[in-house]
Formats: sequence, C-alpha cells, structure tokens
Amino acid sequence: MNAEILCVGTEILLGDIVNTNAAYLARELAALGIGCYYQSVVGDNAGRLAEGLQLALSRADMVITTGGLGPTYDDLTKETVAELFGLSMELHRPSLEKMEAMFKGRGRVFTKNNEKQAYFPKGAHIFDNDQGTAPGLAVESQGKVVILLPGPPREMTAMFQKQVRPYLESRSTRVLRSHTIHLFDIGESTVEDRLHQSMLDHENPTIAPYAKLGEVQLRVTASAADEAEAEALMQPVMEEICALFADHVYGVDVEDLQHALVGRLQELGQTIAVAESCTGGALAKRLTDIPGASRNFLGGVVVYTNEAKARFLDIPMADIEEYGAVSREIAERLARSVRGKLGADLGVGITGLAGPEGDGVHEVGTVFIALAAPEETFVREGHFTLRGRSGVRLYACQYAFDMIRRYLTGLPVIPEETQ
Amino acid sequence: MNAEILCVGTEILLGDIVNTNAAYLARELAALGIGCYYQSVVGDNAGRLAEGLQLALSRADMVITTGGLGPTYDDLTKETVAELFGLSMELHRPSLEKMEAMFKGRGRVFTKNNEKQAYFPKGAHIFDNDQGTAPGLAVESQGKVVILLPGPPREMTAMFQKQVRPYLESRSTRVLRSHTIHLFDIGESTVEDRLHQSMLDHENPTIAPYAKLGEVQLRVTASAADEAEAEALMQPVMEEICALFADHVYGVDVEDLQHALVGRLQELGQTIAVAESCTGGALAKRLTDIPGASRNFLGGVVVYTNEAKARFLDIPMADIEEYGAVSREIAERLARSVRGKLGADLGVGITGLAGPEGDGVHEVGTVFIALAAPEETFVREGHFTLRGRSGVRLYACQYAFDMIRRYLTGLPVIPEETQ
Repeated sequence: MNAEILCVGTEILLGDIVNTNAAYLARELAALGIGCYYQSVVGDNAGRLAEGLQLALSRADMVITTGGLGPTYDDLTKETVAELFGLSMELHRPSLEKMEAMFKGRGRVFTKNNEKQAYFPKGAHIFDNDQGTAPGLAVESQGKVVILLPGPPREMTAMFQKQVRPYLESRSTRVLRSHTIHLFDIGESTVEDRLHQSMLDHENPTIAPYAKLGEVQLRVTASAADEAEAEALMQPVMEEICALFADHVYGVDVEDLQHALVGRLQELGQTIAVAESCTGGALAKRLTDIPGASRNFLGGVVVYTNEAKARFLDIPMADIEEYGAVSREIAERLARSVRGKLGADLGVGITGLAGPEGDGVHEVGTVFIALAAPEETFVREGHFTLRGRSGVRLYACQYAFDMIRRYLTGLPVIPEETQ
Repeated sequence: MNAEILCVGTEILLGDIVNTNAAYLARELAALGIGCYYQSVVGDNAGRLAEGLQLALSRADMVITTGGLGPTYDDLTKETVAELFGLSMELHRPSLEKMEAMFKGRGRVFTKNNEKQAYFPKGAHIFDNDQGTAPGLAVESQGKVVILLPGPPREMTAMFQKQVRPYLESRSTRVLRSHTIHLFDIGESTVEDRLHQSMLDHENPTIAPYAKLGEVQLRVTASAADEAEAEALMQPVMEEICALFADHVYGVDVEDLQHALVGRLQELGQTIAVAESCTGGALAKRLTDIPGASRNFLGGVVVYTNEAKARFLDIPMADIEEYGAVSREIAERLARSVRGKLGADLGVGITGLAGPEGDGVHEVGTVFIALAAPEETFVREGHFTLRGRSGVRLYACQYAFDMIRRYLTGLPVIPEETQ
C-alpha cells in the first residue's frame, strides 16, 4: 500500500502558510507503514486540482488531500473527486443538522453557502469534524481510495487521530504500534550519539529521534501481527532506552512536560502557585491549558514591573534595588511569597531577561527560576541565548516545569552535572 | 513567466522536517510576480526525481529545486538535470578551491567525496554558498530555466536573497504588491457573502479571503509595471473594503489583534492591567509576547480560584457567593480591582467556563469580559461553544483585545448589533 499527499490551497502556493499538514500526514503514514513517494500542492483551481488528483491516483493506491472542503465557491475538492469517479453529490442530512445547530449555538447566521459542506459524493464514508464545520470523507472507487480532510491543521489533525487512523488501520493486516519517550535537558546530537549502535541494531522495532522545540522525543515503532506481539517487541527496547537516559526521561506517551507534571501533582494531591516576571503569564497559561488544572493550580501573578512585585507579593522596593530585579534573590522571594499568599504546597518564581532589550548587567537570555518547597527553595540559573525572546520564555517555562517534575519524583531538583 | 517548486529529500517525505523551503520560495516568487501553480516533493531517488523534473518542466517555464546538492551518493539533483538536458558535468575550479580553503580554515579534512560539489552541468550559472559547502546553480536550456538550491534553509535563503532574487529580477518586467486587511468578529462566510460581487469584479487587484484562527483576513494583490502603479490600483479597492466592513477592520498589514492594540496603547501612552480567571494567563502571555510590552502592560493576576480572587484583588467571598464566580458582576470587580491595584488606565477582567466541566448554571463556553475605564466599566458576554476549551480561551482573549481596541479608537466598546 502506498499513498500520496495532495494539499490544496492557493495560500500554500503563495507561501502565506507553511504546509505543516503535509509533514504531519507524512509522519503519520510512515508510522502506519504506508509508503509515500510524492507530496504535491495545487491551488484552488478546478483544472489543476483534477490533473493533480489524476496524476496522484495513477501513481498511488491512496491519495490524501487537505483543504478545499469549506463553504466558498473556490472550495472544490469534493466536487472534483466526485466528477473524477463519476459520482453524484448527495446531501448528508446529519451533517447539515449538526452544522445548523452549531451556528445557532454561537448565535451566528447560517448563510446558504454553508450547506455546501453537507454535500458528499454518493457512498462516501464521512468523518465528523468536532473542531470546525467542514466534515472530511473517504471515497473508495475503482480500486483506489481518496481521503479528503479539511485544511485548518487543528481540524485536520483531530480528525486524523480520532477517525482516519482507525479507518486506515482497519484496512491493514499488520498493526503498527509506537511509543514515544520524552526527554528533557539533553540535545538531539547527544541523544543520537548515545543511541547510535542500538539504533542500527534494531529494525523492528525502529527507533527514531525527533528534535522538538524544548525537548527531544524518541519514537519506538514495532510492526507485528497483533498489538500484544508489537508490545512484546518494544518492551525490552523501551527499558533499555529509559535506563540509558535515566532522569532525562520525563515521560512515555505523555502530551508534554506540563501534562506530565500536572498528572504528578494530581496523584500526590499537591498544589502550586506561580509568580512570573519575564515569562509574563506563559507558565500559568500552559498549566491552565490542561482541563481540570484548577484543582492543583491555585493561581499566579504576572509581575512584569517592580511595582507589581511590590503590590501583589510584598517584595520591598529596597530589595529589588539591592539585588536587581533579575537575580537569584528576587526569584526566591517571588516563589516564596506567591506560595505563602495562596497557601500552596509549591511556589514558582521566574525572573529574567527575555530581550531584545537588556538591563546592562546580564546577558539577554539570563533567567533565574526558583521553586519554593516546604523545606527549601531551589534556584536554577539558565542562559537561553540561542532562540530569541520567544525561546527565552519557552525554555524558562520548560526548566520550571522540569524542576517541579524532578522535585515531585524525588530526583535532585537541580541535576548534579549542572551544579 | 511561471515557475514550479520541487523539493528533494526523503526526510520531507517521512515528515521528519517541515518543508519551510517551499513556503519561503513561494512567498518570494509571489513577491516577484512569478506565478506558481504547483509545489512537489520527491525523495532522494534518481528515477522519481527525473520524472518529477520532467513533469515540472512540461508545465512551467522555470523550476526551482531545493536539496540534493551535497557530497553523498544520494545527492542527485545536478546529475539528473544534466542528464535531462544532455549536458556533461564539468569541474568548476574556483568552487573547488573555495571549498578546500573553507575546510582548511575550519581544520577539517577535505574528503574526496566533497569534490562532487564543485562539478556542474556545462554552462551553468553558479551561485556561491557563503553559509555552507554546496554552491547553487541555474541551468538555462531548451527555453527553460532550472534553478538548483541547497536544502538547509539557512543556506538556501541566504543564497536566494543575495544571488537568486537579483538573477530573477533581471529577467522580469512586472511587480506584484499585496496588502492584508484584518477583520474581527465576523465569520468568513459572511465576509464572502458581502464581498461576493466585488470579488468577481476585480481581476487586478485580486481579493482573497483567509479564515485564520480567531479572525478573517482579506488579501488584496495587484500586478503592475512598478510599485507606484500597483499601489494606485489597490487604493480604491482597499478603501471600498474598509468602508464595507467598517469597525470590523482592526488593521491593515498588522501582525495580529494584540500587536494592533499594543501599538495603540503606545501611541496614546496608556497602561493596562489584567485579571484572568478562565483564560489563566493566556491574555498576559499574548501581551508580553510583544517586545517592549512592559511599558504599557503593568501586570496581571491569574485568579483561577475564589481564594486567589479574594487574596489578590480583595473581592469579598460573599460577593462571589452572591453572584457566582462566572458572572457579569465578578468580571466587573476583577477589572476594576486590578486597574486600581496597579494604577493602570485600563483594567481587564475575564471570568468564564472554559470547560470541559461546567458549573451547573452556565453553558460551557460562557464568558464575561469586562473593561474598566476611568469613566465606565463595560462588560461583554460571550458564548464560545464551538471549539472546545482552547477555543473558549482563545476567543475570550480575542474579544478582550477587541474591546480594548474599540475603546482606544473611540468606537462603541460593545458593537450595537450585539447589544
């Protein structure tokens, strides 16, 4: 079985958006063991879309498209596929009703052109869209499969995870299973270096490293007749990797660092409060992205200015002047004060220079991260100079989360190698 | 003149990297007024690369490739182009000498396989690579042009800026210019409905709508002999659109809603403070994403719990019990209290139900957003039921930003149609 990816959208041809959909689908297909030799992009143009589809269908068993399912006259993908296979377009009433209810719920007018999104080529398998209006679909005809997915990445990825992947798996006799090991505070080249020999040794399961913003992931994938066999193949390799990277491993098959640590807070029934200067709310935002976080996250303050530090956390102006706003001492006071104010088990304080402007004392990218626990306050100093303002803020949050994670799992809060 | 982009690399087909090169080149070609109707990706495979090139050359005047110029056996792009055009490969001595000097300068051994990078199809125009080893090249033959660029984005973009763009500009007589109009609080289908007739009427400039998360953009693009003529073509259309959508237009050629309003705060020298319940720091985070925001953003509190509301903002527990944490009254008190505490010109308070859990009173997605100004406190009630927890939080921020923007530009803070 091999597939092609065909992304539809003039905004991609104009370079207005980066085609992350193609990369996402490519990775998912690879993980499912489905070969993919071509990716293409065409604009919202009926003739070229038809040509692109025909070409892809001549080369592959399956074509996955993204985009062109919306309500406007230049959304043409469904109509083009129907014409290619000689299928009529039919109204799918449940999709129409769902859409009408959705518009009503938001108090928006359901304009006539939206109806178009509820018409599908006859016999299509429909994928619900729980993140937007346009459903996706699969059309099987003439020994080929065409899967049409919406263009907005959030809609497309959610639909793929929940509906398209199971649909594809149900068509295959082998199963592919993966686990992802999440590593923090270690670079990709170091990971590859340590792994090198065992990477070469393993063909099933395979081991693939991915450098992500702020972490490295190792994906272990096994192909087998069934799930149990796949798991049995992976188990010893997983254990070997987890032993090799020890406390750099913050989780397996977890969403991200903050999910891992909120899970840990929930298990232990511990609470946390945060005081942020340079991260400006990013830490609180990421914690509260998680549903139910309010049971363990008691609140926070964004004390960007010295006045705010004094007003909300009673940090004397004299102290800020003595130590400087960006200092180990002020980070400690932020963490301890917010912990006390909200009566939390743990308090976090972050102060640093996100840039681009400096303070004339520290290099831009210098950050002090404090974790106040009942028995002690830990401070880690970071220098995140590589990735600009957003990188400083991102890494400051990552290291704060990692300190909490390490504390809650009984590891040294500051790794010994960095002390 | 039209072009195609053909990116070469198995790592793109596997989804290991996102194809930012294609987006970059697409944008540059659009800016040069060179049409581009297809983008493709093939792996490091001689047969498929040759097929992909032939297909692209059959459809376009010019093909730009990225990748496959390196020293290893699977770097095949130059050789494939040479074969296609029946050209021999010749050593380019200056490139070889430059490469040898570079290796020497870095104390690295110049291995034999690197020589391959100094061989080019006979008659090629060579683009120096000042960021890496493999030079790029242009081959003109049989009325077509093929431009071959290295795969690493840093090398490719530097080469494009300094050498390829001038090479292309010297071949073209037209320019393309665009403006983007940003709209808020109006759906894509309504935008299109209102625009429909004028969209059809205009061929130069063209008008294209894009639905983005939390807003709609309209891109106006003109083709002309020079920049002044392009601007003159766009001006009446821009004015017509801005009049048509009136106060839904929050900016032209701006980055996003928060940049537009921070710009406005800076112009007016006004300051702001925020108190967030359900958005949990997201509002502060987005404001402080902007460099220099600290001059106008005085700070914030994340008062997720009732205790935090009482502790940081002196909101009596009795009031919270009387009105409920999710209420118009509490939003007002949050906004007014944080404004007063930090001595800001404006205060924002947000309280709502981001879900998935409800409070037994309000529907999940119900949010109250308050803006406390010196003379009055405005409250807008929103029901963001469509896009899950992250959507509720996103839209709550968008509407808060829009209320501030409307206030600062003298518009009714709550649009009349929704009152």
